[in-house]
Amino acid sequence: MSAYLDNHSATKPCSSALERMRPYLEEEWGASFAPHQKGIDQLHALDGRIEALYDLIGATDDDRFFFTSSGADAIHHVLNSVYLELSRKEGKCRFVASCLEDAPLLQGLKRLEEQGCFAEIVPSKPDGTIDLEKLRAAIDPRTALVSISWAPGLTGVLQPIEEIAAICRELDVYLHIDVTYAVGKVSLDFVGDYITFAGDRMHGLKSSGALFAKPGVPLVSSLAGGTLDVPSLTALSAAAQQSMLTLDIMGLETARLRNHFEERILQSIPGAEILFPDSLRLPNVSLLSFPGVHQEALLYLLHRKKVFAAIGGIYHQQLFRLLLACGCEEKVAAGAISFALSRLTTEKEIDYAIETIAGAVRFLQTISGGV
Amino acid sequence: MSAYLDNHSATKPCSSALERMRPYLEEEWGASFAPHQKGIDQLHALDGRIEALYDLIGATDDDRFFFTSSGADAIHHVLNSVYLELSRKEGKCRFVASCLEDAPLLQGLKRLEEQGCFAEIVPSKPDGTIDLEKLRAAIDPRTALVSISWAPGLTGVLQPIEEIAAICRELDVYLHIDVTYAVGKVSLDFVGDYITFAGDRMHGLKSSGALFAKPGVPLVSSLAGGTLDVPSLTALSAAAQQSMLTLDIMGLETARLRNHFEERILQSIPGAEILFPDSLRLPNVSLLSFPGVHQEALLYLLHRKKVFAAIGGIYHQQLFRLLLACGCEEKVAAGAISFALSRLTTEKEIDYAIETIAGAVRFLQTISGGV
Repeated sequence: MSAYLDNHSATKPCSSALERMRPYLEEEWGASFAPHQKGIDQLHALDGRIEALYDLIGATDDDRFFFTSSGADAIHHVLNSVYLELSRKEGKCRFVASCLEDAPLLQGLKRLEEQGCFAEIVPSKPDGTIDLEKLRAAIDPRTALVSISWAPGLTGVLQPIEEIAAICRELDVYLHIDVTYAVGKVSLDFVGDYITFAGDRMHGLKSSGALFAKPGVPLVSSLAGGTLDVPSLTALSAAAQQSMLTLDIMGLETARLRNHFEERILQSIPGAEILFPDSLRLPNVSLLSFPGVHQEALLYLLHRKKVFAAIGGIYHQQLFRLLLACGCEEKVAAGAISFALSRLTTEKEIDYAIETIAGAVRFLQTISGGV
Repeated sequence: MSAYLDNHSATKPCSSALERMRPYLEEEWGASFAPHQKGIDQLHALDGRIEALYDLIGATDDDRFFFTSSGADAIHHVLNSVYLELSRKEGKCRFVASCLEDAPLLQGLKRLEEQGCFAEIVPSKPDGTIDLEKLRAAIDPRTALVSISWAPGLTGVLQPIEEIAAICRELDVYLHIDVTYAVGKVSLDFVGDYITFAGDRMHGLKSSGALFAKPGVPLVSSLAGGTLDVPSLTALSAAAQQSMLTLDIMGLETARLRNHFEERILQSIPGAEILFPDSLRLPNVSLLSFPGVHQEALLYLLHRKKVFAAIGGIYHQQLFRLLLACGCEEKVAAGAISFALSRLTTEKEIDYAIETIAGAVRFLQTISGGV
């Protein structure tokens, strides 16, 4: 038995994505821009397929779509576009992000700082949302871009997107929203100027990502000069279509399983707590803290019993630091683990996870002498 | 019947690549850096697989390998590394390339020029090789990098790599060699400081590319901050292994088919000529010029009859311009088409191609009133 509750870091490619992709690997593998049948067939194959991606994030025909090789690639393309068009040409070299952001954005900002830009990191409030007053204060006339997640994966807390967008409009700065963890989980609108997400977090492939841009915003042409990766794009659009079709499963059944999981954990483990319980949260994420245990020890035990979860690390922010940045008590942050379900998660997996977590917490509390 | 002789722009993913990849799409799809079994299994799966890539280009254990999302991505990573480490930090902002290079490099250089760098383009000699004296003259103390192809795809002419490397060593500039069209066609050594190639030109996937770097050369860490695309990397290493195993097929059987193709074309079409006949050429490429026809008209007819070939375009250099740059007569350049076989090309395809080309050339010569 196992329970895969680490859909933060990878999701299972859905069978529809793999099936739709297959012909483009086995038969129609020509270069999509080649001026002959084997090229043109590939482009025709995309007819009517990109629409699902537009629908998924509420984009309109006027918005531009770029297929990218990953979610990180999409984020870097946004940063690079703004850097080349605004920082270098107009001297707008300040970038604002929240303290809740993920590695690709933080690494991208670090690179921009090496090139002479400045990154302002805005703190979060204790409810896990970005501090809007501090966001406003962080923006100055030299700010080029505000970049935030619709909902960070580890906390699952939905950010006040409309308010953030209003501030950016008022102060005339561009807004980039990464929806990697929100896409396919809640219904989205194209708020802001750029939207990015990763294929491998929504049952597509690791070799896929998406960037949408509103008309007229800074956007350098892709540096690639290579051929379009039609197989991966086909898989991404199939995954998008499945995500649309199953949005209600996510909002009803997955949310029910998540709530069941949380209730049973609270019942079985005295002192366990749900973090950010009163905030709006993604329906598939459960961020819990367990008293008297250290998150790394608990995660190790869970992983040994094939209950897969996350505390961040190289490619997420460290959950511990992220929680401290939200004003969490150190001992609560030290015992926190994040669980992310997917629409494929079963009740059996959840029940196995509950039992395993309860046993592991009890064991750790015993050997550490209780709380 | 058809004949796919456009292996310049895409090659068929080999069955070994697809089969080796499949488990990583269907079962072992975890994030490779996740600290649990589903992550660790992926890394274990790569044990002993990367070696084939090292072998393919003659790299040693000391050399560093980066998996990239395409050949273009690999080239941009080299340019970006040199730009950030040498141009910005030491003021070395000159880049030298040959006039035979492909779109990803040329686009990358254009972007660098927008950022204040200079690109020097060295002309070619009439035999299709870079002019070594002009190369030497183009390098000055502010030159950071020389970037050339081992063999450009459209001409197939092998470049004097050892001599180029000697000049770069003597003048103390870094050398990047793109081996996209040469890899798996001829045996390679790791000459120079960087080697790049594209997976989709050697029977891997479009979502794969490789960058090798000698120890100590400028190399910024990958901006990605994302997860490793294990499926595409697995496919690339399987494709590399197959390329190694079939290098003799390429050198013997594919070369024989290419020679047969050229002989029969010369016999059937009076005035047809092989371009760069006395240069060392890739065993799979045939660059031919047909008298009294326009390359675009001929290519159109061939494509209608499913004989697929190339004259360059967006993602290659234009063959016409490239040939003029080599000092070719305009009317010879205007009638030129490049054919690229692969190890999967059959004698039947070649015979069909010969017959179709001969018929199409005759037809075009007739309607244009002969030569």
